[in-house]
Amino acid sequence: MPRWDPNAEDRLRDAALELFLERGYENVTVAEITERAGLTRRSFSRYFADKRDVLFAGSDRLPADLARSVRAADDTLPPFEALLAALVDAAGALTDQAPLAAQRRAVVRASPELQERGRTKFAAATEAVADALRDRGCAASEATLLAEAGVAVFRTALERWTDRPDDADLPTRIRQAAAELATHLATVNPATLLHP
Amino acid sequence: MPRWDPNAEDRLRDAALELFLERGYENVTVAEITERAGLTRRSFSRYFADKRDVLFAGSDRLPADLARSVRAADDTLPPFEALLAALVDAAGALTDQAPLAAQRRAVVRASPELQERGRTKFAAATEAVADALRDRGCAASEATLLAEAGVAVFRTALERWTDRPDDADLPTRIRQAAAELATHLATVNPATLLHP
Repeated sequence: MPRWDPNAEDRLRDAALELFLERGYENVTVAEITERAGLTRRSFSRYFADKRDVLFAGSDRLPADLARSVRAADDTLPPFEALLAALVDAAGALTDQAPLAAQRRAVVRASPELQERGRTKFAAATEAVADALRDRGCAASEATLLAEAGVAVFRTALERWTDRPDDADLPTRIRQAAAELATHLATVNPATLLHP
Repeated sequence: MPRWDPNAEDRLRDAALELFLERGYENVTVAEITERAGLTRRSFSRYFADKRDVLFAGSDRLPADLARSVRAADDTLPPFEALLAALVDAAGALTDQAPLAAQRRAVVRASPELQERGRTKFAAATEAVADALRDRGCAASEATLLAEAGVAVFRTALERWTDRPDDADLPTRIRQAAAELATHLATVNPATLLHP
C-alpha cells in the first residue's frame, strides 16, 4: 500500500460530498468518509481537521485574501472599484471549482448548522474587507456598508456561477452583479431621499 | 405586593441590560436579572422565553414586518424603492428606542454567541424580503442581491442612529445610507465591467 496518494485529498472530499448529499451532513461520520474513499483516518487528518473542514477548507482564507487585495488595489481607484477588483482577484482561486462549489452549496443549504457557519464565514470576510477599506481612507460605517454590498455581490455571483457555470465565468458574474445593483440603486428617487 | 406591575417588562429589560454590560452576557442568570429588577421568575416568564429573548424580542417580528411592507408598497415603485419604503416603515416601530438599541448592540458585540444570533436574525430578514421582492416580479437571484443590499443599508443606518440618535432620525439615516451606496456604486466604471 502506498504511503502517499497524490489524489487523497480529492478522493476524501469527493467521498465526503457524496455521503453528505446521500445521507445528510449530520448523519455522516469521518469513518464512513474514509471507508468510502478507501483511505485511512490518518490520511483524513493530514488534510482536514474534521468533517466540517472538508466543506470550508478553502474559504477560510477568503477574508485575508480579500483584505490583502483591497489594500493592494491601485491607489487611484474609488473604494467600491478597489473592492470589486479584490473580489475578481479572489474569484481567480476558484476557477474550475464550479461543480465542487455547487455540491458544497447543496450540502450547506440542507443543514442549519452549516448555514450558520457559512454566515460566520461571510461575516468574517465582510469585516476584513471593511478594515481594509478603512485603511484606504473610508469612514468607519461607510466601509462596513460598502463591504456588505461587495460581499452580497460576491455571494450572488458565486450562486449564479455554480448554478450555470457555462454561461459566464465568475469574474464576469461579479461585474454583472455589481452593475445590476448599481442600476437598481440608481432608480432610487433622490427627491424621496431628501424630502420624505 | 401587587400582582401586576405595568412597568415590569421595562424593569426586567433594564436590569438585564445593566447586568449583561457589567458582567458579560454569558455570566448572567435569569435569577440575577429578576433579583436586580425586584421581580419574580414568574414575572420574567410572562414577558420573555429566556435571557436571550430580552435582547431579541422585538426584532423577531422584523422579517415578517419587512416582507409585508415590501408586498404592500405601491405597484409602480421599482423594486429597490419598494424595499426602501419597507425599511422606512420598519424604522417607525423603533422610534425612541435608540438608547435601548445602543445598549443592546454593546452587549451583542461582546458575545460571539449573540453575534451569531444577530446574523441569523438579519439572514431571516434578508430571506423574507427576497421572497417578497420575487412576488413583485424580481428574478430569484436579483431579489436576493437587492435584499442583501437593503438589509446592509438598514444595519448601517441602525448603527449610525444608535451611535448618534440626535443627529438624524432612523428613516433619514436609511435614506442617507441608500443614497451613499448608490453614489459609490455609480463610480464603478462600466468599461471595466464590460471589458475586464
